[in-house]
Amino acid sequence: MHISTYFACILLGITLCYGVPVKKSNGCGYDACNLGDPMKLNVHMVPHTHDDVGWLKTVDQYFYGARNYIQHAGVQYILDSAIRALDQNPDRRFIYVEIGFFWRWWSQQTDDMRNKVKQFVNDGRLEFISGGWCMNDEASTHYNSIIDQHSLGAEFLRDNFGDCGRPKIGWQIDPFGHSREQASLLAQMGFDGLFFGRSDYEDYATRNRTRTMEMVWKASANLNKDGWLFTGVLPNGYGPPDSFCYDAFCDDAPIMDDPRLHDYNVPERVRTFIRAAQNEAVGFATNHIIMTMGSDFQYENANEWFKNMDKLIKYVNAEQVNGSNVNVFYSTPSCYLYALNKAGHNWTSKSDDFFPYAHHPHGFWTGYFTSRAAFKGYERHSNNILQVTRQLNAFANLNLRNSIFYLSEAMGVAQHHDAVSGTEKQEVAFDYAQRLSDGINVASGIINQAYSKLLPLNSQSPPTSPQFLCQLTNISECVPIQDQQRFTVTIWNPTVHSVLHHFRVPVTRAYTVRDSTGQPILAELFPVSNSTKKIPGRVGTATSQLIFRANLPALGFSTYFFEARTLVKREKPKVKITPNDECILQNQNIRVEIDAQGNLQHIINLKQSIAVAFSNQGFYWYQSFPGNNSQSQFQASGAYIFRPLSPTAQPVSQARSITCTKGDNVQTAVIVFNDWTSQEISLYDEGEFVEVEWTVGPIPIDDNMGKEIIIRYDTDINSQSKYYTDANGREVLERTRDYRPTWNYTVVETVSGNYYPINSRIWIKDQNRQLTVLTDRSEGGGSISDGSMEIMVHRRTLNDDSLGVGEPLNETAYGQGLVVRGRHILSLQTPETSAVHHRVAAQHLYMHPLTSFSLIPQDYYNYSAAYRQTWSALTDTLPLNVHLLTLDQLGPKDFLVRVEHYFELYEDDTYSKPVTFDLQSIFKAIGTISNTVELTLGANLELADLKRLDWVTNGESSSTKKTSKERPLDDTNITLNPMQIRTFSVALA
Amino acid sequence: MHISTYFACILLGITLCYGVPVKKSNGCGYDACNLGDPMKLNVHMVPHTHDDVGWLKTVDQYFYGARNYIQHAGVQYILDSAIRALDQNPDRRFIYVEIGFFWRWWSQQTDDMRNKVKQFVNDGRLEFISGGWCMNDEASTHYNSIIDQHSLGAEFLRDNFGDCGRPKIGWQIDPFGHSREQASLLAQMGFDGLFFGRSDYEDYATRNRTRTMEMVWKASANLNKDGWLFTGVLPNGYGPPDSFCYDAFCDDAPIMDDPRLHDYNVPERVRTFIRAAQNEAVGFATNHIIMTMGSDFQYENANEWFKNMDKLIKYVNAEQVNGSNVNVFYSTPSCYLYALNKAGHNWTSKSDDFFPYAHHPHGFWTGYFTSRAAFKGYERHSNNILQVTRQLNAFANLNLRNSIFYLSEAMGVAQHHDAVSGTEKQEVAFDYAQRLSDGINVASGIINQAYSKLLPLNSQSPPTSPQFLCQLTNISECVPIQDQQRFTVTIWNPTVHSVLHHFRVPVTRAYTVRDSTGQPILAELFPVSNSTKKIPGRVGTATSQLIFRANLPALGFSTYFFEARTLVKREKPKVKITPNDECILQNQNIRVEIDAQGNLQHIINLKQSIAVAFSNQGFYWYQSFPGNNSQSQFQASGAYIFRPLSPTAQPVSQARSITCTKGDNVQTAVIVFNDWTSQEISLYDEGEFVEVEWTVGPIPIDDNMGKEIIIRYDTDINSQSKYYTDANGREVLERTRDYRPTWNYTVVETVSGNYYPINSRIWIKDQNRQLTVLTDRSEGGGSISDGSMEIMVHRRTLNDDSLGVGEPLNETAYGQGLVVRGRHILSLQTPETSAVHHRVAAQHLYMHPLTSFSLIPQDYYNYSAAYRQTWSALTDTLPLNVHLLTLDQLGPKDFLVRVEHYFELYEDDTYSKPVTFDLQSIFKAIGTISNTVELTLGANLELADLKRLDWVTNGESSSTKKTSKERPLDDTNITLNPMQIRTFSVALA
Repeated sequence: MHISTYFACILLGITLCYGVPVKKSNGCGYDACNLGDPMKLNVHMVPHTHDDVGWLKTVDQYFYGARNYIQHAGVQYILDSAIRALDQNPDRRFIYVEIGFFWRWWSQQTDDMRNKVKQFVNDGRLEFISGGWCMNDEASTHYNSIIDQHSLGAEFLRDNFGDCGRPKIGWQIDPFGHSREQASLLAQMGFDGLFFGRSDYEDYATRNRTRTMEMVWKASANLNKDGWLFTGVLPNGYGPPDSFCYDAFCDDAPIMDDPRLHDYNVPERVRTFIRAAQNEAVGFATNHIIMTMGSDFQYENANEWFKNMDKLIKYVNAEQVNGSNVNVFYSTPSCYLYALNKAGHNWTSKSDDFFPYAHHPHGFWTGYFTSRAAFKGYERHSNNILQVTRQLNAFANLNLRNSIFYLSEAMGVAQHHDAVSGTEKQEVAFDYAQRLSDGINVASGIINQAYSKLLPLNSQSPPTSPQFLCQLTNISECVPIQDQQRFTVTIWNPTVHSVLHHFRVPVTRAYTVRDSTGQPILAELFPVSNSTKKIPGRVGTATSQLIFRANLPALGFSTYFFEARTLVKREKPKVKITPNDECILQNQNIRVEIDAQGNLQHIINLKQSIAVAFSNQGFYWYQSFPGNNSQSQFQASGAYIFRPLSPTAQPVSQARSITCTKGDNVQTAVIVFNDWTSQEISLYDEGEFVEVEWTVGPIPIDDNMGKEIIIRYDTDINSQSKYYTDANGREVLERTRDYRPTWNYTVVETVSGNYYPINSRIWIKDQNRQLTVLTDRSEGGGSISDGSMEIMVHRRTLNDDSLGVGEPLNETAYGQGLVVRGRHILSLQTPETSAVHHRVAAQHLYMHPLTSFSLIPQDYYNYSAAYRQTWSALTDTLPLNVHLLTLDQLGPKDFLVRVEHYFELYEDDTYSKPVTFDLQSIFKAIGTISNTVELTLGANLELADLKRLDWVTNGESSSTKKTSKERPLDDTNITLNPMQIRTFSVALA
Repeated sequence: MHISTYFACILLGITLCYGVPVKKSNGCGYDACNLGDPMKLNVHMVPHTHDDVGWLKTVDQYFYGARNYIQHAGVQYILDSAIRALDQNPDRRFIYVEIGFFWRWWSQQTDDMRNKVKQFVNDGRLEFISGGWCMNDEASTHYNSIIDQHSLGAEFLRDNFGDCGRPKIGWQIDPFGHSREQASLLAQMGFDGLFFGRSDYEDYATRNRTRTMEMVWKASANLNKDGWLFTGVLPNGYGPPDSFCYDAFCDDAPIMDDPRLHDYNVPERVRTFIRAAQNEAVGFATNHIIMTMGSDFQYENANEWFKNMDKLIKYVNAEQVNGSNVNVFYSTPSCYLYALNKAGHNWTSKSDDFFPYAHHPHGFWTGYFTSRAAFKGYERHSNNILQVTRQLNAFANLNLRNSIFYLSEAMGVAQHHDAVSGTEKQEVAFDYAQRLSDGINVASGIINQAYSKLLPLNSQSPPTSPQFLCQLTNISECVPIQDQQRFTVTIWNPTVHSVLHHFRVPVTRAYTVRDSTGQPILAELFPVSNSTKKIPGRVGTATSQLIFRANLPALGFSTYFFEARTLVKREKPKVKITPNDECILQNQNIRVEIDAQGNLQHIINLKQSIAVAFSNQGFYWYQSFPGNNSQSQFQASGAYIFRPLSPTAQPVSQARSITCTKGDNVQTAVIVFNDWTSQEISLYDEGEFVEVEWTVGPIPIDDNMGKEIIIRYDTDINSQSKYYTDANGREVLERTRDYRPTWNYTVVETVSGNYYPINSRIWIKDQNRQLTVLTDRSEGGGSISDGSMEIMVHRRTLNDDSLGVGEPLNETAYGQGLVVRGRHILSLQTPETSAVHHRVAAQHLYMHPLTSFSLIPQDYYNYSAAYRQTWSALTDTLPLNVHLLTLDQLGPKDFLVRVEHYFELYEDDTYSKPVTFDLQSIFKAIGTISNTVELTLGANLELADLKRLDWVTNGESSSTKKTSKERPLDDTNITLNPMQIRTFSVALA
């Protein structure tokens, strides 16, 4: 409808003009909603675009519309044109989702345009939905980064659009499977609901048949109703009904409504639309249905969509005079949700998750749990640096948040469901990595600046030498310190508990290492393994790693001073190396038995007196299902899909070599399976875990077989089909082999169909033994037979799996297949003692101490006289079950802080209980808290202002009696319940 | 630049803002032009879209953007989005060309939008260029229809936009070769210049080398400076420079100008653009160059083009501070032309044409001269009906111009360079034909209405029986009269001279035929030939044609009354049929000798005592060059390209059969060459021409060879490499085999390279003999050897010629190849007596008498008592060299009339002289002229108001001392010079 007509309608008080119900806009959000006609089938037409923050092209190529020969997509034009289209007709609605793109666009707009956009937001014509920096992946993302990326978008929206800009609806329309933790986090962010597009084909069919496409998801086993989230499966993925795509890049027939011209098609189009609406309604519980009018990168010329939808609405509703019950109008996910909310329905509920996702019997999207294992590791590593940088920025009071933004932004982008998921094109993966690298470069400058303030003992101290990161120490490389006479190793512990950790410094010579008190400490030279030395691209020439033990203060640092020394010729090597013999690693807590053939035989927990026997442990491979995805050669394994040709994994070698090396700090067994797989099993002094550092690659493909490499742990644990995997690093879900809790599952793919995301841990257990494997990055895996856990650590496929990426997942570097190295941390405990071990260790793994190096001109005496060598932000010890999730300096005196109880209910007798502590203790080093305001998890709304919609499931209402969140301003004591995260805005005096 | 910034610049009196010269808009046309910087290389960036009025999709599919799977194109969106883009920045310019589309769009716009568009036109921001209904083909169009289609667009623009909407620039950017007559007509329409995109590759290279891409085209051999037209060859077809296409459907890099984002490319883009401008400037004479920023159906999302051009202009001009001499700005073809005009250059001139067009040595675009021979015939037939309908509408004072519009519009569409040219897809050809057919249906209703007013003798006459057309009489089919007892044949003569013509009426029985005086006249039954009977789709069962001679009054009708009679058994058949024997056709003027084998031997002009001997006459075929247009199999013959595999045409058969049939009205020889080629040579009583009716098809392709069928006339005329072909049915150009007048021609394709369009005639001659062949439609042909003329009449190719249409030209009907029937009219005269014969005959051929039929309930007595049986609009005889080109009733008392002198200078001693006559004589039957205003040829401007730009060529100025066009209102005496067309608006008292 033309604007002037619209105003005429309003003036005349006519509510129906041209057959289109016209609603005067009263404001944004639910107030701006058209709730339809209770006597009709109400079709909520939701114009939307789905803009991947990188996939086949980089995020900036997508933004600008560059390299359209790869994929036609230009987000700048989408936003340009959608805004202009909204101007044409006040009934039109548009939603926008990915703030990573919106921010790019917004920063190029004039004030006039910005004001226009604000007006549209205030009128509810433009609505931000989800509003994260991206639409994050749900399988391979860590909760810390999900929260960060959502908060990054939410902050932008809050700052620029205020309350009308606050997203209320989760919109995970494209991710390939849905995590329960994602829903729980969205609930904690104050969202009223969640819609997604992809669900397992059997699940979908069942729900459609039983009209349960929409439900209340009980998304936390710990948070009760705070974790409930109304959730809907969209009817058609996220696309429009068949033949109603009006995008410039669709070929469907436009509405040709001039009867004087040839091909007039209004009657046929109206008939077809009404039929489509009625067909869709069959699967849904109320007289409201949603149609997602858009798809990937659509609305580049929004006029084409809107012009035809305007006509469609007009002509379809005009059919009501002929008895049609279909009432169609522009809407948004919020308005659709609100209409459902008002429908007074008693919804079903669900408490498991939506993994794994299969779109056909052989199409399990479980490959991406592991795809791009190196990038998945780098992403987790980058988050580690980001959190440390925030902390250092805060404690050094640098107030450099705007610079940290580069890494925050890169991390926000990396959470995208074609980024950390590993399902992007290779060139795009490079770009993601470059962004992280660029962000880390900026961050490392901030780290250096922070230390330049934190290290000097007083104003007379000479300027500090630069602190730098050595990010390749995992391959024993740190070129800047190589051959240096003196350097320091300064280690920041980002957790709120003191940490005992063994570090390895690559060296070419011997050093005396002093701890922060000046005491020389035990530092043992371990040879760099051959498998490390031959890693392609390694330019460092370090032959040894100096291994020393560090005691790090909570939320603080210690500096270790390295000074070269000459090895005395007769100095007896303290480290004993034994090739190809039985190797028993044993410390105060654990005994690891490996036979002379390199087979792990037993792990024994000496304190608990429990042992696990291994029938097999090591590397196996599946051949990727090959094929060109023609009808006869479908479905190939690829970036998304894991489909083994045979369900039986093959060992990578028949024989192994083993080298046993023992020092006082660590005992290791380097087991080489073949020239592309090896593992180093380490047991550290006083350690309670067994570390398995695995190295895989280059995966050979000269036999023209794609290969998917797993590490399998085959034990005598009587696991009875059950296994346990975490969701996004937090709550753990029980899995049952060949089973789905909510539908009658057809077992076809016996391996892939039992894979789940492992973000941080997997375990199996029996009565008195639990073997937990912690991972240092997201991986996929499962328990394919009782007593066994397998974790896919690397994959290299030779076929594209025909889901759009258009490339096989065949990563190379230096002219050969990519080599990836990572770690599994094994914990053998009783079920009762497991949680405290894996919970603490998992937090330490992703919030790892960060090491920086500095070349020091002074000798130790002068250095120690000038610089602080250890420091902690804390004076009180915080309870072990408290985790400092976020510490972010917003302004000179303003901070955002998230604290977390990271134990689940009932998993530990001591720690699975509410815990109370004083928030002030975290700020002791900075100042005195003058005010705290508790916020939603996304930090964009005062918690006291949050009012979520109420839903009824199985007769029970989702509403909770709100305990008054008002707290005395001077009371900084905080209580956390299991798995609770609380977010505060903190102002210092 | 943002609008607010723009106004700020204006307010501050700053002429350079952001490096972009800003010009306050002072009005439309040349006044609104930015003329650049005299010290710089000025780049006129012309945003434009080229919208084919049908090609791969129908005009309405293109308009709506339907069937985008065939070709992505949606003109409604182009106009939507270009208008909106103009709103963003007042510097932006856009041109629009094809009014057939614009009219469709305009009729769907609100008043607000219309006002906005008018404002843009008045500001010179939107400019109509060319402004015909379509961008007409130049090879196969007739001048009558070129004028009509231009006038149709011009009228729309004049009525809706006034003076600012008047196009001044011809814009034939896509047609495949350029006719001199087109340029002459544009000059007569008052255009200031012409640009086109396609010129022969050798011509282009020569012009580019000699900086003569732009010239003064002396486009008429008769009209002197009134026919001069400044003409420019565009530098890059009609596309943008390489890598600067910013259309949504191009893949070139956008300007990525945010240095914070990856892939920032401003410096590289600026460098590349400056280099492109400088490279282009090399071929052009002044410091102004044009860049056509657009292409086929571009600007569907105009924002993408303009947004990037805005940036390009800004950044390129910013480079001037670093010494760049490139000054780029938005412009239009008018403004570019105006800048050239102001440059004070002395231009070269040209007086031949731009046919044929080749884009590479084997790529002569001469196939389309003949492609879709049936449609080319139907188009000419439709124009015949259109002109008659206009006349009848006028003389019956029906004032039904709005209804005639359907056929006018269809004819306007049909002139498109992928319509009558035959280069559209088959489905689209069907649509063009359907449009004509629909238009004819409406027109035939008007014809019926007109006769219902013209026929009754008085108000007591009973209502007339319906008049209907029988459009298949060329295959002896008129089903409605079949077996009828009584019917009338009413024949309208649309020329201003009385006509003697023989008509053939298909019948199943014998009839008495009475002329308009009631006298029974000689009507001979000739058998319908077997080749006619077997034409697929013929449903009529007429076995005979009744041939009678009609004397038709000038600009009027006669009715012939048919009454069935019984053949008296012993009635001696007057018609003699002689199979397979020598056949001499002879009348008062001509003798045609055909031997017993069916070979035409001689044509003798008895009066002039000249004879031509034929060594061969008949059907030959070339094998179409085959191939898939891969590099090794290039270039196939197709819809555009004629490329024979061998230059030697093969006879279609070794033997012929001949049937000689002689009556008093006509003598014919039916010569059957094989089962798909035949000709009927007819000589009518008192006729001065030999008629050759050819029938070709279904062309066999079971040998997998494409075939191009010619009729060859091999004579003993000593033609000395010269031959003569008309341009669009008017002036005739001399052709010389293997030669081009303006460049050193490389002879590669000895047949195709000598083909020219034959719109109406071709001749060869020697000292005292000229053999002229008139065609009934556009065909291609030439003289490949001395004494020989060949005319391609039909073609069927099996390969696409890779120029976009994507189909071989393989027309079928009724499950087999299409059968086409047409006519050649042969005139053997001395060179001195030829013109008067071919000029008059050619006009009678395209302004053919139109026959309508009516079933009559009354007997002749009652009929003749009630109805007028003959009528002429004229009382005075008009001079033979005057042609009534257009008679169009605009309103009850208003008419548009075009009269024409249709002889060239010097071609006839009597008729090649100026002629004076009284316009009133045409209107005698309607009323008395009260006022006449002379208009430009396009009828959109008073001639007195026309001021064309002045150009200098070879030192001579194009300006003519304007003879005062003011004439006394009561003087309706008109003088026409040879080849002059004069256009008048006539008001009756």
